[in-house]
Amino acid sequence: MEATPAPRSGPPASTRLDSYVDRYAARTAGMTASEIRALFAVASRPEVVSLAGGMPNISGLPLDVVGRAVAGVVADHGAEALQYGSGQGHPRLREQICEVMRLEGIDGHPDDVVVTVGSQQAVDLVTRVFCDPGDVVLCEAPSYVGALGVFKSFQCDVVHVEMDADGLVPAALRAAIASVRAAGRRIKFLYTIPNFHNPAGVTLSAARRAEVLEICRAEDVLVLEDNPYGLLGFDAEPMRALRADETEGVVYLGSFSKTFSPGMRVGWALAPHAVREKLVLAQESATLCAPSFSQFAVSAYLSEHDWQGQIKQMREMYRERRDAMIAALHDFLPPSCSWNVPHGGFFVWLTLPPGIDAKAMLPRAVTARVAYVPGTAFYADGFGSSCLRLSFCYPTPERIREGVRRLAGVLEAEMELRATFGATAPGVAAGPRSGYDGPSTDLS
Amino acid sequence: MEATPAPRSGPPASTRLDSYVDRYAARTAGMTASEIRALFAVASRPEVVSLAGGMPNISGLPLDVVGRAVAGVVADHGAEALQYGSGQGHPRLREQICEVMRLEGIDGHPDDVVVTVGSQQAVDLVTRVFCDPGDVVLCEAPSYVGALGVFKSFQCDVVHVEMDADGLVPAALRAAIASVRAAGRRIKFLYTIPNFHNPAGVTLSAARRAEVLEICRAEDVLVLEDNPYGLLGFDAEPMRALRADETEGVVYLGSFSKTFSPGMRVGWALAPHAVREKLVLAQESATLCAPSFSQFAVSAYLSEHDWQGQIKQMREMYRERRDAMIAALHDFLPPSCSWNVPHGGFFVWLTLPPGIDAKAMLPRAVTARVAYVPGTAFYADGFGSSCLRLSFCYPTPERIREGVRRLAGVLEAEMELRATFGATAPGVAAGPRSGYDGPSTDLS
Repeated sequence: MEATPAPRSGPPASTRLDSYVDRYAARTAGMTASEIRALFAVASRPEVVSLAGGMPNISGLPLDVVGRAVAGVVADHGAEALQYGSGQGHPRLREQICEVMRLEGIDGHPDDVVVTVGSQQAVDLVTRVFCDPGDVVLCEAPSYVGALGVFKSFQCDVVHVEMDADGLVPAALRAAIASVRAAGRRIKFLYTIPNFHNPAGVTLSAARRAEVLEICRAEDVLVLEDNPYGLLGFDAEPMRALRADETEGVVYLGSFSKTFSPGMRVGWALAPHAVREKLVLAQESATLCAPSFSQFAVSAYLSEHDWQGQIKQMREMYRERRDAMIAALHDFLPPSCSWNVPHGGFFVWLTLPPGIDAKAMLPRAVTARVAYVPGTAFYADGFGSSCLRLSFCYPTPERIREGVRRLAGVLEAEMELRATFGATAPGVAAGPRSGYDGPSTDLS
Repeated sequence: MEATPAPRSGPPASTRLDSYVDRYAARTAGMTASEIRALFAVASRPEVVSLAGGMPNISGLPLDVVGRAVAGVVADHGAEALQYGSGQGHPRLREQICEVMRLEGIDGHPDDVVVTVGSQQAVDLVTRVFCDPGDVVLCEAPSYVGALGVFKSFQCDVVHVEMDADGLVPAALRAAIASVRAAGRRIKFLYTIPNFHNPAGVTLSAARRAEVLEICRAEDVLVLEDNPYGLLGFDAEPMRALRADETEGVVYLGSFSKTFSPGMRVGWALAPHAVREKLVLAQESATLCAPSFSQFAVSAYLSEHDWQGQIKQMREMYRERRDAMIAALHDFLPPSCSWNVPHGGFFVWLTLPPGIDAKAMLPRAVTARVAYVPGTAFYADGFGSSCLRLSFCYPTPERIREGVRRLAGVLEAEMELRATFGATAPGVAAGPRSGYDGPSTDLS
């Protein structure tokens, strides 16, 4: 099996073909750059109102407190915080993580916690530990683009399960399990975001939580509960986590990215004991350990600051932005659009009038200086073309209102085009489209 | 394909069998806990002289400088440093990384650099991008335990290539390539640590560098050059990197873990343009981005501190420890042992008298309050039983001398046992043994 030597000299690397194209792993077929990535480079210009990004708004963080905390970490714990740590994570931080989880009814043990490089890495490690190529992962329809990217990169097949205003639909979950198994295929887990869903904005009701757990117990399906937004509810106390009522059948993922700082890259998994052991081995192989310095910094922030008071302020800020977005949608959008009113988190899921394609419309929206993420990004199967995700987390209320006003103008023009030329108008299409739009940090 | 529901109640998780045992991915077969891990828990007690760990000695770091740097990052760049960053890494840091690589003759472009969570993650991402199950990776014999762990976790087959005092043996490399290809198997890359090898301590000579590159060009084998220790030479200027003389055929990995702080978890890959694009996609899927805060902190440290002067101090410190170890080996060990004198880095590779098994001897060594890593940890194929790795990076010169003295005592007892009972003595064995001993942070 002699290979032909590839050319080693010639034009600069950036202008030549990829000489490695035949040598990549099969899994790279599922690791493709987003078609809309180039558009997002444009969308990051200041004149564009981006309703696309999922970045938390950290402008309210007390930088004086954080500055003192990180300086204190160096002065008081430098020898440990600047050194390698254990693959499982800093013991004191794992205790604090258990205190955080207690707010959602979880009675977890620090020994069952693995600290990860953001909860994104936790999704990656769980998938690495469980999934062979061709295994099925059940996901809500739509689902988080970054998780879909992980599942694709491990060559899993995603089967979407319907949601409604109360979250995942139990009957649809039963049906999906039955149909996948009838096809002789193996389900490795149900990936779910019960609170303030990304991108759908909905929350799984308490009654549904019990029902979903009951189904997964009866059918022996592991639940991967991803909960980055659980403490960011606008109206009520945090909901009880799935993990609070099921110890062995749930791997729970949490994160400090939305409640403190994504730049620290500190998330975690709480897993049944045997799974936790595998996750630690996977973590050691992937990165040796999550960043020690970040772990000490998060630990110091939690110890030294009123972090719950800080989260309360964040919730107020996000609620004000949510209100601004809902009011603007109501004021500017035609009645043939529909959307939900999220009770927490960052996102509104908007359904466009029949026949309008959100991805085809995006270039015109960016030209009109507003950006969003087309719904297809959140499906592994090309569905979602008539939907889009709007984020209210980052811009000011005034900018949000202006962004929705611009979006309404673009949509009106699109609808006129369709009324004049019908479904054959360029860029106007309906039904599932091929292609997967993520992941990218812009979309997270 | 109905699965039988696993029991969901019963004894606490820690005492029950793993109910997920039939559900893990096939790759987890290659992700096993080290047999010697339990011993290392004992070896971390203060009364034990550990010559096992590969942790850099960061006691000389100027904590005042680092403290000011991290506080300055929060004050001056908090909005960016505490936020998500790009999957490729912070642009200013990538420029500084190119300045660092220039010390080894590399003319790299910041656009071809991907920042990773330590260079461990870079090994993981490169393997993820290139290797399907059953692909062959060529590695030196012995090789870095953490890299072997990654290759196993991606179900690669490692083929070891002989080294001698001048590093990788070119004729052995040619022979390995020919024999793997004659068997109809696919080589994905040669993984090599040219400078101050972990664990072998040797450095690839300048003449051999040219020859290895020539072979890999002619045979079209990608080189993965892992270089964490290159700036930690004791005697001379840094050697010219393989990547300095070959742009398209080498992926170069670097790290700030040994020259600044492993707790920051900042490493990097410099890759041909097309490969770099794949690595960024893999990085986004794995962690979204390397920790922004760490990236800003490393960048500030490089800008504000005489980091090259700091490295010079580190080299002096490590040289003193190397000298202490070599002197002690000379003073205490029997003439039937052999070892190399490393000109940089952290490690001495010790070959025991015929018939003495380093892994079998380890429990007795730990009882005598000295620890090392048995040679088998550094082979994917069970070889290395008569060798062990000694680290001189962490303990003081006095402790190193005491550790080697204790080791000599254990070895003497072992040799007496063997002289009395022959090869049938318990724990005395020769030849390859099965089992893989890593990875673990202790062994890094």
